Amino acid sequence: MKTAFHFSKDIEMAFKNDPPGQWLSTLPPNCLRLSSGYPAPALVPSEEIKKAVTRLLDEERDLPLHYLGSPRVPQLKKFLQERMVQRGVEASSSKLIVTSGACQAIDLIARVLLDDDAVVIVESPTYMEALEIFQNYTEHYMTIPIDEDGLQTELLASMLANRKEKGLPLPRLLYTIPTYQNPTGTTLSTERRQHVLALAEQYDFLILEDDAYGELGFHDNPSLLKAMDTNNRVLYVGSLSKVVAPGMRIGWVVADQQIIEPLNWFKKDLSHPFNEATMASFLEVTNFDGHLKFLTSAYESKCASMLSALEEFLPPAVSWFVPKGGYFVWVKIPGVDTSKMLPKALAAGVSFVPGKYFFLDQEKGLEYLRLSFSYANEEEIVKGVELLGQVTGVNIPVTEDAE
Amino acid sequence: MKTAFHFSKDIEMAFKNDPPGQWLSTLPPNCLRLSSGYPAPALVPSEEIKKAVTRLLDEERDLPLHYLGSPRVPQLKKFLQERMVQRGVEASSSKLIVTSGACQAIDLIARVLLDDDAVVIVESPTYMEALEIFQNYTEHYMTIPIDEDGLQTELLASMLANRKEKGLPLPRLLYTIPTYQNPTGTTLSTERRQHVLALAEQYDFLILEDDAYGELGFHDNPSLLKAMDTNNRVLYVGSLSKVVAPGMRIGWVVADQQIIEPLNWFKKDLSHPFNEATMASFLEVTNFDGHLKFLTSAYESKCASMLSALEEFLPPAVSWFVPKGGYFVWVKIPGVDTSKMLPKALAAGVSFVPGKYFFLDQEKGLEYLRLSFSYANEEEIVKGVELLGQVTGVNIPVTEDAE
Repeated sequence: MKTAFHFSKDIEMAFKNDPPGQWLSTLPPNCLRLSSGYPAPALVPSEEIKKAVTRLLDEERDLPLHYLGSPRVPQLKKFLQERMVQRGVEASSSKLIVTSGACQAIDLIARVLLDDDAVVIVESPTYMEALEIFQNYTEHYMTIPIDEDGLQTELLASMLANRKEKGLPLPRLLYTIPTYQNPTGTTLSTERRQHVLALAEQYDFLILEDDAYGELGFHDNPSLLKAMDTNNRVLYVGSLSKVVAPGMRIGWVVADQQIIEPLNWFKKDLSHPFNEATMASFLEVTNFDGHLKFLTSAYESKCASMLSALEEFLPPAVSWFVPKGGYFVWVKIPGVDTSKMLPKALAAGVSFVPGKYFFLDQEKGLEYLRLSFSYANEEEIVKGVELLGQVTGVNIPVTEDAE
Repeated sequence: MKTAFHFSKDIEMAFKNDPPGQWLSTLPPNCLRLSSGYPAPALVPSEEIKKAVTRLLDEERDLPLHYLGSPRVPQLKKFLQERMVQRGVEASSSKLIVTSGACQAIDLIARVLLDDDAVVIVESPTYMEALEIFQNYTEHYMTIPIDEDGLQTELLASMLANRKEKGLPLPRLLYTIPTYQNPTGTTLSTERRQHVLALAEQYDFLILEDDAYGELGFHDNPSLLKAMDTNNRVLYVGSLSKVVAPGMRIGWVVADQQIIEPLNWFKKDLSHPFNEATMASFLEVTNFDGHLKFLTSAYESKCASMLSALEEFLPPAVSWFVPKGGYFVWVKIPGVDTSKMLPKALAAGVSFVPGKYFFLDQEKGLEYLRLSFSYANEEEIVKGVELLGQVTGVNIPVTEDAE
């Protein structure tokens, strides 16, 4: 007999959406990767991590392969706490939890805060994997457009006032990447940071500050929302994926102890002593500020190459935001459906992520694409943008299928 | 203003229970660890893992530190698939998902299958961390006692018939550790395996087969429930924690593709390329059957030492099941509340886990304790049991507080 499976309501909700990872395309061999939001191979300290893990296992033998108290597991947590303090955030032990990357952190926060009637405010566009996560919990969103100064808080304020006036449900949570945003590369201005914190207080919502790129500024990094937060409204999510290595899966949350405790309650992959102790071993011999300086100098140069290639090879109607840090350039190609342009780009040998995947209402993203200057080297970036210019010339209208 | 947090219904349900990890006690220095369900330090291949990770990073450099397709990530999956086939289980790629340990696998399965009105069948006693997980999803259980042949399926059958007759909700899922069970060390007989599969078909429930210890038999291992399952009723959960190293966090699920797909949907720590590729690198130069033989021979000898020490040092009224494999001996001390005995044992220098933590109704477990022969060496085991005999002599009655 064929077994009919009975699934939970969570699954019924999730399965209304597209499966996760639809934005990932299969890349042909030797494709120039302007889609990949990963650190460049040359910028991943693989040799240092090899030394770190060797030293770890030489010194601790089986300890980090067990749950027996590798001294480096609390050492990693201490490093992250101290780093937060340096950045103006109080982060005592009970206020910080180490997670398996930022995605898990976002997922745990959503689980702890969101019922299926909760309203979530998201930036439009925003990180597609965060959208995938939130859609496992609720169908109710307020989407706030981004401009060159980030989330448009005036618009948010009027939408909130309007909701309140109409007696509509008010949001529980705002998800924001205020600094070097994914995908737009924009940074929330100081005024808007203050404004969004005031709105959170006025309308009683929490703010999930996703800071995956926050230390990757080409010059000074702005103050964290969490550092400006006097009312315990901000749940800070950090990650070492963009500044050390994504495959190590080290993220963390700093929030009120009342939030951290339930996150731990639902974190059923448990802790990861091998990864955490390896990372601690790497960090204990690394000048972290020096490492960041090395990274940001390289990324600034790569970004400059991308921007000048865009000027050179893309038609004049094409526009983009100029990032002050991070990994991404957000490009608008008026009148072109970039998802239809992608197969041609891949055939030509360059990849990007079509803009539509960063929007809940995908129609709003058709004319956009995300380029990453993080992974490819400068030569590849220039060549990739040149190829992009060639396929952009094909000029596929948004309104009709040109294939 | 002090922010009042609004939590999800999930949290409200979870917070009715004790926080996870209550069963973990703080061990004094040099305590003989008969509580730890971990492989012995000497049996964890830390030197081989060091070589494996060094070789991995030498050969692949940054690949396993990224999400860029380390060839060893699919290689690990292939190893697990082939191992399952050897054990009589069809495990095509779409039917197997690698998880961050067995706990995460159990949690994902619970999330996908259980609403808060779902009834779950659990063995009594059973793995305390599984109880912690299920209690995050539902309050409704059927608890089925264990005897020396494992889960008492006749009793389960009559309880199911009774529920059906009374029109009570029927269970959605049975959680079982059929082989070398945690904490009892018992193994479900072949007849009962057939019986429980027939009951699953008759009453339309699924079976979560937790096989964390299933390859650790001192002699032949029994057939897997999943290998006997002709109706797609069994969701198999495996783990390399007990046979390689818990800190590597490698578990997996084999089930119908209809189940695997949603597990992947909710697995928001993503995959762990560094751990998975390191494990693949270890396995590619390891004779796995030889490694298992080495482990089981060591554990058989450690178990024999523990059993003869129990004979020698414990009062005659004390009884236990004789395990055919695994990590644990389940000890009954009639008339003694083992949780009250624990501080005395710790003060004497030996640890165990009080039996009550393995029961939903903790009162049922007062006279029991779990000893593990996995972690301590033979000398420590004998000494530990001797110390246990001394504190058992104190004879703390169940019915009154002797402290």
